[in-house]
Amino acid sequence: MITAELAKTARAALSPVDALFALVADDMLAADAVIHDRMSSAVALIPDLSRHLIDSGGKRLRPMLTLAAAQACGYAGENHVKLAAAVEFIHTATLLHDDVVDASALRRGKIAANVVWGNKPSILVGDFLFSRAFELMVETGHLGVLGTLSRASSVIAEGEVMQLKSSNNLSTTEADYLAVVTAKTAALFAASAEAGAQVASASSAVISAFHDYGHNLGIAFQLVDDALDYSGREKQMGKAVGDDFREAKVTLPVILAYARADDEARRFWRRVIENGRQEDGDLETAIAYVEASGAIRETGARARAYADKAVRAVSKLAAPDIRDALIDIAEFCVERAY
Amino acid sequence: MITAELAKTARAALSPVDALFALVADDMLAADAVIHDRMSSAVALIPDLSRHLIDSGGKRLRPMLTLAAAQACGYAGENHVKLAAAVEFIHTATLLHDDVVDASALRRGKIAANVVWGNKPSILVGDFLFSRAFELMVETGHLGVLGTLSRASSVIAEGEVMQLKSSNNLSTTEADYLAVVTAKTAALFAASAEAGAQVASASSAVISAFHDYGHNLGIAFQLVDDALDYSGREKQMGKAVGDDFREAKVTLPVILAYARADDEARRFWRRVIENGRQEDGDLETAIAYVEASGAIRETGARARAYADKAVRAVSKLAAPDIRDALIDIAEFCVERAY
Repeated sequence: MITAELAKTARAALSPVDALFALVADDMLAADAVIHDRMSSAVALIPDLSRHLIDSGGKRLRPMLTLAAAQACGYAGENHVKLAAAVEFIHTATLLHDDVVDASALRRGKIAANVVWGNKPSILVGDFLFSRAFELMVETGHLGVLGTLSRASSVIAEGEVMQLKSSNNLSTTEADYLAVVTAKTAALFAASAEAGAQVASASSAVISAFHDYGHNLGIAFQLVDDALDYSGREKQMGKAVGDDFREAKVTLPVILAYARADDEARRFWRRVIENGRQEDGDLETAIAYVEASGAIRETGARARAYADKAVRAVSKLAAPDIRDALIDIAEFCVERAY
Repeated sequence: MITAELAKTARAALSPVDALFALVADDMLAADAVIHDRMSSAVALIPDLSRHLIDSGGKRLRPMLTLAAAQACGYAGENHVKLAAAVEFIHTATLLHDDVVDASALRRGKIAANVVWGNKPSILVGDFLFSRAFELMVETGHLGVLGTLSRASSVIAEGEVMQLKSSNNLSTTEADYLAVVTAKTAALFAASAEAGAQVASASSAVISAFHDYGHNLGIAFQLVDDALDYSGREKQMGKAVGDDFREAKVTLPVILAYARADDEARRFWRRVIENGRQEDGDLETAIAYVEASGAIRETGARARAYADKAVRAVSKLAAPDIRDALIDIAEFCVERAY
């Protein structure tokens, strides 16, 4: 007999993201089918380029949040699957445009689409997926969800524009940085979770709980990502370590390290970030400065605080399986920083 | 006393686009206010860049079609104004991305945004305006219109991707070319007009009439634009003559000229379009070949046939002022080709 205790042990053996996947596996498969169906086009380049990124082993965490929220709220319809596909399309479109803007060479450990096909198709296929996302949302007929996700899309674009200003700019403050992270990353995490509760006609308290979970998880997630970019552990990331450094992006590890830097270190940061003049060995020096300043530990501590908020947001959720899986994901997200 | 005859004479003195503007002037002013209000953002670069293009003297023909259709259908609400603003945002977003993709230097006679601010802000502000367009549409609460405009947005992006394939490609057929034009230009003209009738809850016959008008006008408009690019009359266009040639785009004038070319002319076209090796004086040679082949005249004749279809689509419209103005615009669109 499979006891609750046994099930818990089995679940504990999975990564927390896999554990949530297991809880919404049928819906994830249905969403995957919608994703592949709706990225099709008579213009072959569109599915070819889309598939390159969409089938590149992303964790699909955002659509999983939509499906988990809908299930936790007892949703019995079909629209959550379309919303999950829409969320993944919005995310994919922003990645395609991001990689053009950042001239990235790698994405999820694969050659980025902008390198394989060039910038033009990446921009235009991004536009296509973004439009397709809206078509899917419109098909659900749920205006509340349309409002949530269209607002999130504007906020993401605002965050991306804001981020341009912090490149090469050591006067970027922690508040500036948090505003960028909140807009470019947390907004879609929040909207993805919220949309699942909304489509299930959950109470406004429950909708808020999912929003807050996504918002705080998104910030924690981005903080950890930015810390890992100075960690030298390439394998864990599926993107090249040092990307932010090479693009002279001023992320929290740099802000904190620069604030504590002595004159020599400040001269280094001004040369490599403000003037963008980088030489062989500079990434290693930057990593050493960031580590020595305690900036990685402190970025991790900030991430921990947001993860705790995420956990608190869902701690009173009635659906225990999904609640526990969401809590585990928030914990896990921070642990990968160390 | 102002008689109907006098009013008609006064209207005849205006350009047809100005005449339609006069009929929907109050709504156009209201839409302009919404456009300026909703392109605002705490991130100053967003309104700065948006304003550069939005206030650059575009004719606002697409939002005018939305407002004219709504008025012709007796609409008494306020939502048509938001839809008109949304349509202009979608159009502006596609222009921003187009100019990045084509590396254009000029737009409406001004330095293009991608030259002033660079490609990155142009891509991201385009994404912002596109998202803002959806927010505005969602606020109207009209799912039918949301369907029309989100579908049109996907089709536009498909058309832009299709167009990439016809660059440098002399095997592009007239059917390929028409598919691109229908998607990248006619789809938004059609959706803009259709949306105005939809929001006014017009009959499906009237909604179809506006769709067909916009569709055919859009094709005629693009055919004429592509003919003018080989006409040498820079002033009429507000963009540089020869843009398509320099980008090695295979438009109808080139398709027709190439089909009738002798061996020497074919060698020329293969060098400048397929191999993209262009020298001083090649644009003049291309214009001479296009003119001599009758391709401009024939492109104009094709445009005339689409304009006639546009005229027929609205000829039974009950609102005579708007009907006549729409008919005049279709006629005028073709006349500017000569």
